[in-house]
Amino acid sequence: MKFRSVRLSMALSAVIAATPMLIAAPGVSVARDEGMWTFDNFPLQTVNEKWDLSLDQAWLDRVRMAAVRIQGCSASFVSPEGLILTNHHCVVGCLQELSSAETDYVKNGFMVGTREEELRCPGQTAEVLTEIVDVTDRMLTAGMGMEGQAFAQARQGEVARIAQENCAGDPKFNCQVVDFYRGGRFALYKYRRYEDVRIAFAPEFQAAFFGGDPDNFNFPRYALDASFLRAYEDGKPVETPNHLKWNANAPAEGDPTFVVGNPGSTSRLLTMSQLERLRDQQLPVTLIQASELRGRFLTYAASGEEAKRVSVDPIFGLENSFKAQYGQHQALLDPAFMNTKRQEEAQLRAAVEADPALKQRIGDPWAELETIQAAARDLYLPYRQLAASAGGGSQLYAYARAIGRAAAQNAAGQLTAERKAQLEGALGAETPIYVDMEEIRLGYWLSKTREYLTVDHPQVKALLGKESPEGLADRLIGGTKLTDPAFRVAALSMTPDELAAADPLIAWVMANDAAAQAVASDWNQKVTIPTAQAAERVAQARFAVYGSNIYPDATFTLRISYGEVKGWSYRGVDVPAFTRIGGLYERHTGAEPFNAAAGFLAAEGRINKDLVFDFTSTNDIIGGNSGSPVINARGEVIGAAFDGNIHSLGGAFGYDGALNRTVSVSTSAITESLRVVYPQPRLLRELGVRG
Amino acid sequence: MKFRSVRLSMALSAVIAATPMLIAAPGVSVARDEGMWTFDNFPLQTVNEKWDLSLDQAWLDRVRMAAVRIQGCSASFVSPEGLILTNHHCVVGCLQELSSAETDYVKNGFMVGTREEELRCPGQTAEVLTEIVDVTDRMLTAGMGMEGQAFAQARQGEVARIAQENCAGDPKFNCQVVDFYRGGRFALYKYRRYEDVRIAFAPEFQAAFFGGDPDNFNFPRYALDASFLRAYEDGKPVETPNHLKWNANAPAEGDPTFVVGNPGSTSRLLTMSQLERLRDQQLPVTLIQASELRGRFLTYAASGEEAKRVSVDPIFGLENSFKAQYGQHQALLDPAFMNTKRQEEAQLRAAVEADPALKQRIGDPWAELETIQAAARDLYLPYRQLAASAGGGSQLYAYARAIGRAAAQNAAGQLTAERKAQLEGALGAETPIYVDMEEIRLGYWLSKTREYLTVDHPQVKALLGKESPEGLADRLIGGTKLTDPAFRVAALSMTPDELAAADPLIAWVMANDAAAQAVASDWNQKVTIPTAQAAERVAQARFAVYGSNIYPDATFTLRISYGEVKGWSYRGVDVPAFTRIGGLYERHTGAEPFNAAAGFLAAEGRINKDLVFDFTSTNDIIGGNSGSPVINARGEVIGAAFDGNIHSLGGAFGYDGALNRTVSVSTSAITESLRVVYPQPRLLRELGVRG
Repeated sequence: MKFRSVRLSMALSAVIAATPMLIAAPGVSVARDEGMWTFDNFPLQTVNEKWDLSLDQAWLDRVRMAAVRIQGCSASFVSPEGLILTNHHCVVGCLQELSSAETDYVKNGFMVGTREEELRCPGQTAEVLTEIVDVTDRMLTAGMGMEGQAFAQARQGEVARIAQENCAGDPKFNCQVVDFYRGGRFALYKYRRYEDVRIAFAPEFQAAFFGGDPDNFNFPRYALDASFLRAYEDGKPVETPNHLKWNANAPAEGDPTFVVGNPGSTSRLLTMSQLERLRDQQLPVTLIQASELRGRFLTYAASGEEAKRVSVDPIFGLENSFKAQYGQHQALLDPAFMNTKRQEEAQLRAAVEADPALKQRIGDPWAELETIQAAARDLYLPYRQLAASAGGGSQLYAYARAIGRAAAQNAAGQLTAERKAQLEGALGAETPIYVDMEEIRLGYWLSKTREYLTVDHPQVKALLGKESPEGLADRLIGGTKLTDPAFRVAALSMTPDELAAADPLIAWVMANDAAAQAVASDWNQKVTIPTAQAAERVAQARFAVYGSNIYPDATFTLRISYGEVKGWSYRGVDVPAFTRIGGLYERHTGAEPFNAAAGFLAAEGRINKDLVFDFTSTNDIIGGNSGSPVINARGEVIGAAFDGNIHSLGGAFGYDGALNRTVSVSTSAITESLRVVYPQPRLLRELGVRG
Repeated sequence: MKFRSVRLSMALSAVIAATPMLIAAPGVSVARDEGMWTFDNFPLQTVNEKWDLSLDQAWLDRVRMAAVRIQGCSASFVSPEGLILTNHHCVVGCLQELSSAETDYVKNGFMVGTREEELRCPGQTAEVLTEIVDVTDRMLTAGMGMEGQAFAQARQGEVARIAQENCAGDPKFNCQVVDFYRGGRFALYKYRRYEDVRIAFAPEFQAAFFGGDPDNFNFPRYALDASFLRAYEDGKPVETPNHLKWNANAPAEGDPTFVVGNPGSTSRLLTMSQLERLRDQQLPVTLIQASELRGRFLTYAASGEEAKRVSVDPIFGLENSFKAQYGQHQALLDPAFMNTKRQEEAQLRAAVEADPALKQRIGDPWAELETIQAAARDLYLPYRQLAASAGGGSQLYAYARAIGRAAAQNAAGQLTAERKAQLEGALGAETPIYVDMEEIRLGYWLSKTREYLTVDHPQVKALLGKESPEGLADRLIGGTKLTDPAFRVAALSMTPDELAAADPLIAWVMANDAAAQAVASDWNQKVTIPTAQAAERVAQARFAVYGSNIYPDATFTLRISYGEVKGWSYRGVDVPAFTRIGGLYERHTGAEPFNAAAGFLAAEGRINKDLVFDFTSTNDIIGGNSGSPVINARGEVIGAAFDGNIHSLGGAFGYDGALNRTVSVSTSAITESLRVVYPQPRLLRELGVRG
C-alpha cells in the first residue's frame, strides 16, 4: 500500500486550470477570521484587540523560526533536538519506502526505542524561513522598459542574482524570490535547509486515517493524523532552540488559535465570469466523470484480493480529489457565497472606475475575462478530453507520450543530452504497473471522450478507428512492452518510425499526438495566456486600491492565520468543536474504514476517554497546510492541522467564516497515545511531559 | 435481452418530483415553432400564414382519427386494414415476451409472410381519440363551495358520472376527463379502444438501435426505429378508413411537418426558484450518483458473458435516463434559456400586479415557491436517499418493502382483500433476479446514503449498524428468500414478527421503514403539498392572463405540434437535417454498438444508399411522443418520431427553437427496408407502394 499525501497537502489546485496565482479576497473587513498572512504583514492590532492579547513582532519571529516546510506539507520543531511534528499522511510515502515484505511501517506504525533506530526518509528535506527581505524595487527595476522574452529574461536574471548574493550556492540555504500580489510586491525568502530528515514515530495507519473517505473533510473525526520526524545534520540531531513548547492540554471553545504553515494555492481573485464557468461547466463535468471512474474502480476492487490491493491507492486519490472538488462546487452553488464575491468585485470595479489614471492603466480586464470564458466554454471539452485528461491517468499512456515526444524532439535535433538523461532516469525506474487498472483508465477515458465530443468528432474517429473504447484499450495495454523498464529506456533511442513498428501503444499515441497538441495550443492561446494577462491587471487594480492591507494569494510559502476554536452549524445540524477519545470506541464498528487500530483497541481499558481527540477552528487554511502547528496565544503548540471541513474547500475561492473550519489533531490525543497506546517515554521526555 | 421503451416514451418526468402538471410557457409570441397543441385549439391561422397553407378543422379531424395511443407511446393507422406504425423501441417488450429459447424476435426481428402469422402482443391496447367534449362547467360546478376531502370526492364523483354517461362501461370505449391548465379547463376525451393488438413486423434490434447509447439523443443517426402493429377486433383486422396515406418520399429541408402524438409530461410553468433548485441541487446530485452506478455496472458487465447479458437492460435504462437528465441540466445551465424563462416569469408577475382583483385572488405564489425551495434544499438529500431512491433500484428491496408494509397494514386491519390479491399477483410473478446486480444496487445506495447524509446521521447509523455498505448488502441479498416467488406470496400472509424472523432483508427493511416514511411525509408536507397549492395559483394566473391562447402542459393525451425539417448549429458545428442510407455503411465499424445489422450488411449491394434515413425537424415533442407519425401538409405520413436531440431534453422546462429538434425515421428508409432488407411485399402492397 502507498498513500499519497493529499488532503491538505497540495492537491486542490488542479481544477483552476487557466488561472495562475492571484491576490486574495478583500480582507478590508476584518469581521471574519480571514486571511493567510505573511509574517511581515500580520494584522497584529486586529488580533490583539479581538482577543485582548499583546502579541508583537517578537512573538511572530519566534513562531516563524519554529515552523518547518517539508515536501508538500507543513510542520514544526517541538523539541530543542530537532524533533518535528507533522501529519501522518505527510510521512506515509516515507513509511512506504522504508517498509519491506517483513516490516510494514504503514500498517503497523513506526515505533523505536532509541534515537539511533530512527530511519532516514529518502528525499525528505526540512526548511526554516530565516529571513524575509523586500526586493520589490530591484525586481521592478530589472527589465524596466523591456517586453516579452527580454523582459522575462531580465527578471529571471535578477532572481538568480538575488539568490546568488544571499545563498551563494550554499546547500544549507535555499533562496527563493516570491511574487506576491502578482507583481505588486517581491520578497526574498531565505530558508535554512536540512537534508537529512528521519522518521521518529508514526502510529498505525488505521489510527491516523480512521474513518477513511466517509470521514474525510467531515467532522466529528477521530484521526490520530500525527507523526514525528527529526532533522539531522552531520549525522547528529539539529539543535533547535527555536521550537514550540508542547502543551498537552486541549484548548477551550473560543480560545484563539494560530495556524502557521504553507498554504499551497488559492484563487481568490477569480472574477465572477471565471467562477461561473467553473461552477456551470468545469466542475460538473469533472465530478460526473470522476464518479463514473470511481464506480468502475470500486466494482473492480470488489472482484478479488489482488484487485483490492492494487486499487486502494488510486481509489483513495480519486475519492479525495472528488470530495475536494465537490466541496468547491458546493461553495460556488451557495448564493450567499457568490453574492459576497459579486459585491467584492463590484466594489473593486467601482474603485477603478472612480480613478481615471488607474482606469487608464487597468482597462477592463473583467470584461475581457468574460469574453475569454465564452471561448473557454466552447474549447473546454475538447481541451479536457484530448489534452488535459488524455489517457485517463494511465501510466503506460504517459510513458508512450513521453517517449513519442522525445523521439520527435530528437528527430528535430531538439532533445538535449541533459533532458534525455533525465528521461532515462524516470523511464528506467522500476514502478509497479497494474494492467487491469491501466485498461480501466484508458477504456474509461476513450469512452468519455466519445461521449462528450460525440462519435462524429474527427479526433474521436481518429482515436477509435473501428474499435470500441474498451476493446481498443484492452488491445493497446495488452500489446505494449512499456511495462518493461528496459524497453522504455531502449525506446528512448529509437526513431519515430522504429517506435511505431516496435510498440502498438506508442504508435497509436504518436499518431494522435499532433492533434492533441494542437488542441492544447488552441486553449493556451485563447484561454490561458489572455487569462493570465487580464488577471494580472485585476490583481494590479486590487493592489492599487487596497495595497498590502490585504493578504496575497497562497504561494506555498509561510503564512499565519488566526482564528478560534469553534464548531459550526449547517442546515439545522450543530457540529461541536471537539471530539473526545471515548468517541473513537463508540464509532468503531469493526468494518472498514471504521475499524479502530489494533493499538487503540488493546489500550481501551487504560486510555483516558475524556481527553480531546480532534478539534475544529475558524483558521483560514488550504492544501499545503497539512501538518501545520496549531498554536495558542502563548506560542505553544496545541495541535497539528490535518484537514478542513467540506465547506473549507470553497476556500480555494473565498473564505466563509460561518462555515469554513480547520480540523486538527490535538496534542492531548498525541500525548495520551504516546503514553498509553504506543508507549514512547523517550519522546514524552523530549516533549517535556510526564510519561 | 429486454429493452424498456424509454427514449421518447414516458421516462423524463422522474426528475420533477415535487411539481405536478403545470400549464405551458407563454406561447404569446409565435415566432418559434413551439407548442403541444390540443386538437380543439390549434393555431391554424399562424401555421397557414407561415407556410402559405390552407389547413382547416377537417384536416385536423382527419389526422386525429388516424392517430393511435398505445402503452407509453404514440402511433398511427397507415392502412385501411388496421396497420399501425410505431417505433421499434415501443414494441421491444412485446417481442421479448413472444421470444423463446429457439426464436429471438428481438435480435432477429419479426418477419412473417402472411397476416395469419401476426402474433398478439400481451396486454397491448390501441386507442383512437374520437371525441373531445368540454366539461369545464360541470366540473367547476361540482364541489363548488366545498373544501378538502368533500371537494375532492365531489369532483371524483362528477368524473365518474361523465365517464358513465359517455362510455357506460363499454369496453370498446375509454372515457377520460382531462384537467388542462390546472383546473382552468376540463375536457372529456373519449377513445375507441382495441384490445387485440398484434405484431406485424419488426426489424433486427441492431437495425433499430444502431449507435446505441453514444448516438442516443444525438444526430446524425442511422436507426430504423420502426415497427408495425395491427389492431384486431373479433379476430379480424379493424377497418380503418381514417388512416394516413403512406408517402415514401422524404421531405425537403424547410418543409412543414406535423407531429401527432401523446407527449407525456412537461413542467413549463416551473418558477425560477424551482428551476434553480433543480439546476443547483437535484440534477447535479442525480447525475453524479447515476455516474457512479454506471461505472459500477460497466465494470461488472465486463467481468464475463453472463454479467454482460444480465446488465444490458439496466445499463441501457441508466444511460438513457442519465443522458435525458444531463440534457435537462445543460438547458438549465444555458444563460439564454434561463433569461427567457426569467422574462416570461417577470411578464406574468407584472400582469398579475397590474390587476388588483387578480392579485387578490392569486396572491404571490412565486414568493411562496421560493420559500418552499429553501425547505426543499434542506430536506432533499434525506428525502432522496431515505425515501425516493431507497434501495437503489434493487428489486428484492422493493419486494421486502411491499411485503413489510402490507403486513403492517394487515396488522392494523387496513389491508383489503382486493389489495392483497393484487399484491399476490405481482409478488407471485416469475421475474428473473440477478443477485450480483442486486448486491451492486443495494451496496451503492447504502454507500451514497452514508456519503451524502454523513456517517453521523441517525438513519445512516440505523441502516448500517456495524457493517459496511457493501458488506451489509451482500449479507442481506445473499440471505434473503425473496428470490423465490412462492416465498414472496407466502410472506404476504405472515405477521410482522413472523416476517422479521423469516427473512433478514424483510426484517431490516421493516426496521428502517418507519423512519423512511417519516422523511417522505416531511417532504410531502413541506414541499409537495405547498408546491402543488402555489403552482395551481401560478397556473390560474397564467390562464387568467393568457386564456387558451397558450397550450397546456403535456398530459399524455393527443397533441399536435407544427414545425419544419431543419438541422441546427451548436458551438460552431452545423448538423444537417438528413442522413442517408449510405451513411450507415460508413459509420459501421463492426464494434458494438456501431455494428450494422446482418440484414443491412447483406443488402449493401442492392440498397439505394441515396435515400433519406433519419431526419430532424423543429417540432416540439417530449417523452410519450415515441412512435408519433410525422405528417406533411397534405396529411400524409412521412416518418415516425423516435427521439429528440440532446437540446430537446430541455423541453421539459421550455422550448428553444434554435436548438430543440425532433428526430424521426423516414418512410423512405422504412419502405426501402421492406423492399430490399426485409422483403415484405404484402406490407408494401398494403401501404400502397410498389414492391
